[in-house]
Amino acid sequence: MEKQNRSGTAGKVIRCKAAVCRNPGEPLVIEEIMVDPPKAWEIRIKILCTSLCHSDVTFWKISIGPFALFPRIFGHEAVGVVESVGEHVEEFQEGDMVVPVFRPNCRECRDCKSQKGNGCSIFGDKLVAEMPRDGTSRFKGMNGETLHHFLSVSSFSEYTVVDVVHVVKISSEFPAEKACLLSCGVSSGIGAAWKVADIEEGSTVAIFGLGAVGLAVAEGARLRGASKIIGVDLNQEKFEIGKKFGVSEFINPATCGEKKVSEVIKEITDGGVDYSFECIGLASLMEEAFNSSRANWGKTVILGVEMHNTPLAINTYFLLRGRTVTGCFFGGLKAKSDIPILAQKYLHKEINLDGFITHEVNFQDINKAFDLLLEGKSLRCIIWMD
Amino acid sequence: MEKQNRSGTAGKVIRCKAAVCRNPGEPLVIEEIMVDPPKAWEIRIKILCTSLCHSDVTFWKISIGPFALFPRIFGHEAVGVVESVGEHVEEFQEGDMVVPVFRPNCRECRDCKSQKGNGCSIFGDKLVAEMPRDGTSRFKGMNGETLHHFLSVSSFSEYTVVDVVHVVKISSEFPAEKACLLSCGVSSGIGAAWKVADIEEGSTVAIFGLGAVGLAVAEGARLRGASKIIGVDLNQEKFEIGKKFGVSEFINPATCGEKKVSEVIKEITDGGVDYSFECIGLASLMEEAFNSSRANWGKTVILGVEMHNTPLAINTYFLLRGRTVTGCFFGGLKAKSDIPILAQKYLHKEINLDGFITHEVNFQDINKAFDLLLEGKSLRCIIWMD
Repeated sequence: MEKQNRSGTAGKVIRCKAAVCRNPGEPLVIEEIMVDPPKAWEIRIKILCTSLCHSDVTFWKISIGPFALFPRIFGHEAVGVVESVGEHVEEFQEGDMVVPVFRPNCRECRDCKSQKGNGCSIFGDKLVAEMPRDGTSRFKGMNGETLHHFLSVSSFSEYTVVDVVHVVKISSEFPAEKACLLSCGVSSGIGAAWKVADIEEGSTVAIFGLGAVGLAVAEGARLRGASKIIGVDLNQEKFEIGKKFGVSEFINPATCGEKKVSEVIKEITDGGVDYSFECIGLASLMEEAFNSSRANWGKTVILGVEMHNTPLAINTYFLLRGRTVTGCFFGGLKAKSDIPILAQKYLHKEINLDGFITHEVNFQDINKAFDLLLEGKSLRCIIWMD
Repeated sequence: MEKQNRSGTAGKVIRCKAAVCRNPGEPLVIEEIMVDPPKAWEIRIKILCTSLCHSDVTFWKISIGPFALFPRIFGHEAVGVVESVGEHVEEFQEGDMVVPVFRPNCRECRDCKSQKGNGCSIFGDKLVAEMPRDGTSRFKGMNGETLHHFLSVSSFSEYTVVDVVHVVKISSEFPAEKACLLSCGVSSGIGAAWKVADIEEGSTVAIFGLGAVGLAVAEGARLRGASKIIGVDLNQEKFEIGKKFGVSEFINPATCGEKKVSEVIKEITDGGVDYSFECIGLASLMEEAFNSSRANWGKTVILGVEMHNTPLAINTYFLLRGRTVTGCFFGGLKAKSDIPILAQKYLHKEINLDGFITHEVNFQDINKAFDLLLEGKSLRCIIWMD
């Protein structure tokens, strides 16, 4: 039996505004759409605010192949309030403040129950699919056309429907725009430093790419007591910004002359860093990150998604000398258990989230958020629904 | 002041027999040679027995480049007794039974003192050099010509001189031919499973290449309680041999038809193994080993030395799903502290060393050991000096 909610919308289609992407690379269009009620194990969320992540932009540009699905509702970093819940949902109820996460966490499969990693062997990596259980969409245009979901979240809409395995509850006392940051990029960076690299106090660290994810790696490294945090970026302005997140040294590859960045890093760290991170998504930079790591225990963590499908070419002799390469989605965090830990760390003033918010816009100006990110001017632009 | 030893040879040049390699790929020649007394921090060892490892064969074949040094005395797996010691040597004395190890362990540098890895930041990887401290040879032919060392050990000689950082003391009660096995290949395999992969009970394991090193990985995996140990080899006979070391399933790539070995492994392990090992030294097999590992926590350990200098090409998307690649020399073991632990495990019947010895020959028949290894007939052929 349907539980009715306070606004009387439970079980009914909701008409609301969404920023629809009709064609790859084109500005989003604010349209009225229809959002179906949640089915079993789903919840419908009223989005409070959302933000733009590089992955949105990456998929927004893709014009061919199985990932090019249009019209589509992008957005996967957000925070919202539960409007209604579908059958069998016991974890959430109307009014809960929640953070959606693209990486599923069912808590019941072998992978979710393991202490290691953060994959889910039941829900996997559904980058193409609509709703994970039945493969259908909950969004329609006013003419009845199907609008595609994105990364199981689709937060560029006043209302969205998300499976319970993709949602984490958070205290309603928590500032909404800070909760939004925990939804993807910032958590990914902090998690990579904390859970994947497991940086020890006094370690040296190099970070390739000082966007929000790279700066969040710096923040995580600072949190773990790294002694030296080297930021690598072509944008010289990133050094001043990076200092706020613990970046202690800066290398601009454009000013290295004949030397490779990895050579410069080896010089200033007596043979290489303990931990290196690639936060861009270029195989050539991944290789440089690997070559920057020291022999014997150097660990390279790949966070960037290589969109050219270029493989990472590793010198096997360097590998034999005790180096390690690994990678992660969502910083190796298990969403349901680790996001609350990060939220606590923010409340205890252990981590800096405020510094990531460089801009705020209203929903109707969402395309400005794209411009700011594409121009490298923003870290995170909060997009407010109201 | 020289301490004189029982045989009166301390401080004097020793004339003895050695198996000299005069030209790449040619049979070794048993010749009379002169072995200088040990200098400071060196010891001269009377070899009891030695064995042939694939690395000897690899370097024996190299005919051009900086690694092609002839005439040369190969051999780096051995056990012997200290004949005399050089100045400042306090760790060893005449009569001690010792195992030489190609991987240095000074115990004083940052790397040796660390709990991680097994490199030595002072002595590094001296693959080309003669004696590590002064870069000169202790071997001469009877006509005065210099004979080159190999991997800081050169055990294909009745007497050799080794730096103290390359030697481990072992109880004289320990069977010599078993101690010899701990000197390189078998320790490397067991160490990779134990210290580098750190295999947990119940894990699934795939091993590419069932030579002595690969079988030693199996032995290490069995020791750690792996539930499934898949051996991959083109030689069908290796399955029966492998069973003695815990190999529970066998894949012959020649019988996989259209399927890749990694696909077969994924099928029989529900998505991939927890740990995979490459023990051959081919980039294409390293890639297959990586592709055989499961998402979320799969770890691939590279032991094989890629002699074509082909880089390992890694699918970065597979990496992002939580896989890890690492590599090691000498199984990540710190020689001075870890070889005694393996020796204890043998004495407590926890590990099988006996099964690795498939052949034994006298020193004058050393070329038979080469034939047996090249024909894939032996795991380890013990070469007795007396």
